[in-house]
Amino acid sequence: MSVESASIGSISCGEIARAVERIGRRVHQTPVLTSKTLDERCGGRLFLKCENFQRVGAFKFRGAMNAILQLSDAEKASGAITHSSGNHAQAVALAGKTTGVKTCVVMPSTAPAVKRAATEGYGAVVVECEPTLAARERTVADLIAREGYTLIHPFDDWRVIAGQGTAAWELLDQADPLDLIVVPVGGGGLLAGTALAVEAKSPRTRVIGAEPAAADDARRSLSAGTIIPSGDPLTVADGLRTSLGKRPYSIISRLVNTIATATDREILDAMRFVWERFKIVVEPSAAVPIAAIINGSIPVQNLRVGVIVSGGNIDLDPFFAGLIHKWVESNA
Amino acid sequence: MSVESASIGSISCGEIARAVERIGRRVHQTPVLTSKTLDERCGGRLFLKCENFQRVGAFKFRGAMNAILQLSDAEKASGAITHSSGNHAQAVALAGKTTGVKTCVVMPSTAPAVKRAATEGYGAVVVECEPTLAARERTVADLIAREGYTLIHPFDDWRVIAGQGTAAWELLDQADPLDLIVVPVGGGGLLAGTALAVEAKSPRTRVIGAEPAAADDARRSLSAGTIIPSGDPLTVADGLRTSLGKRPYSIISRLVNTIATATDREILDAMRFVWERFKIVVEPSAAVPIAAIINGSIPVQNLRVGVIVSGGNIDLDPFFAGLIHKWVESNA
Repeated sequence: MSVESASIGSISCGEIARAVERIGRRVHQTPVLTSKTLDERCGGRLFLKCENFQRVGAFKFRGAMNAILQLSDAEKASGAITHSSGNHAQAVALAGKTTGVKTCVVMPSTAPAVKRAATEGYGAVVVECEPTLAARERTVADLIAREGYTLIHPFDDWRVIAGQGTAAWELLDQADPLDLIVVPVGGGGLLAGTALAVEAKSPRTRVIGAEPAAADDARRSLSAGTIIPSGDPLTVADGLRTSLGKRPYSIISRLVNTIATATDREILDAMRFVWERFKIVVEPSAAVPIAAIINGSIPVQNLRVGVIVSGGNIDLDPFFAGLIHKWVESNA
Repeated sequence: MSVESASIGSISCGEIARAVERIGRRVHQTPVLTSKTLDERCGGRLFLKCENFQRVGAFKFRGAMNAILQLSDAEKASGAITHSSGNHAQAVALAGKTTGVKTCVVMPSTAPAVKRAATEGYGAVVVECEPTLAARERTVADLIAREGYTLIHPFDDWRVIAGQGTAAWELLDQADPLDLIVVPVGGGGLLAGTALAVEAKSPRTRVIGAEPAAADDARRSLSAGTIIPSGDPLTVADGLRTSLGKRPYSIISRLVNTIATATDREILDAMRFVWERFKIVVEPSAAVPIAAIINGSIPVQNLRVGVIVSGGNIDLDPFFAGLIHKWVESNA
């Protein structure tokens, strides 16, 4: 074990079963959908685990709930803090609300007003900071020092990783046996949790990560054998811009061999395909695994393939503006 | 019995159970979804029967399949014909494809190319006609005379009405007991079938139709006690522009007391709410019942309310154009 991994600790794959027990009925057991058209298009049988139907519209609720339930009474009394402008923010806020734990979310001042409002709607205190990594870390550290909050990191946290693994655990019950499970990778919490769930429950199933070609830091990190930060990549899959965390990386580098990629064009095409054929709303990040299957980066011929559809939170403003515009025009 | 209804015949509510048997596993048993947020917003418990997940993306497949399975061998050999530029066109085409019956669909020359392509994709022969009622009826009559096709009318057909009733039949199994079932009404096939299903299976459940305020011919027809044609109304709920058919009207006028309405603004707001909160893609027509519940036209306080979400076929072009436009702009 390297010095680094010793300093961050680890969890065994048995922790996923404990997370399943712990979060129990506080999370939705989301459905698994299939489509003949998609299967014909890619040559395998795909099973879509619909975490867009999860509470707050994303798998992130699993990790947040698993973390918050493990706080000590003293920690619960002082509250939890996180930093996120995405799904994890709302996940921690709602997990806090349903367990009676106060929560604080540090968000960059550039975060969309709608995201801030949604997080506050779940009862969290939102604190703004400058949109830099340094400002965010300082703001979180200050608040922890002053208020005694406990940090629930979006992905670099063993409790969060174990919680995210419960989605694959359920999927393996719902669509057993699976040759392959493909999940999107940003910070790596979902991929690491999935790899642990598979190690515990179905060791013959392969786990593959999928990320935007424009933000392929996980692929490069696995090749290099060390974490390569992602810079500030531009991709429509905005949930996957993050660099890999140390804890997720320590699991992924041990259990995952392959990270596949898809271009933004392919991601948008796959997202549209899912909207049209499955009639479900998925966000761009959630379409990345399907894009990487359709573009051939992940061969699935004659395989049974689980896909975790990570979330469905997407700003519909431009969509409805386009619809209303078109309708007004066609009836002018 | 009036002269008119004598000339059109009738079916008993027992016909719905026979339709359920007949179409069996050829149709999807669609899921029922719920949302705490929607329930809190309207004060009742709503159960959404997701026919957007039905084959061809709409309940119309039920009626088309029930009709095509009742053709005689001679009729099957000669094929089936219908006129529609909407979901019924694809429903008849796919029902024909899966049963080996050739199909022909008469479409106005103004129908979107994508609808024509989808219908042809399911194997139907598409014949264009001028976009007038007279041209459509003449074209259909000519083709029947020449080719021996059997007509499967989109809603003024007992076999179709019975097939549409199977959605409510399933819903009553899935969400029993229900105080109320609300369905959209255009030509009236779904509403008439639903009323028959409820008469057979749950007579204490009330059935209410919902239509666009801009196309409220069903409401006016029920008030007047006779069918009032709809003219050519402008509404975003383009599946509901049709006038009531005689056969649906004969059932609806006997079993349904109330038709509620919603404005186009309310329909679009309800549609957006469903997309955002349920993460499912529904078409404007499918959002009309929910719009009429949210706007208070249908009181649901403390009631258990079934809603048939009729379909999810909507052109996503303006949606994705808006998304791509916004994304390019924000990264310019």
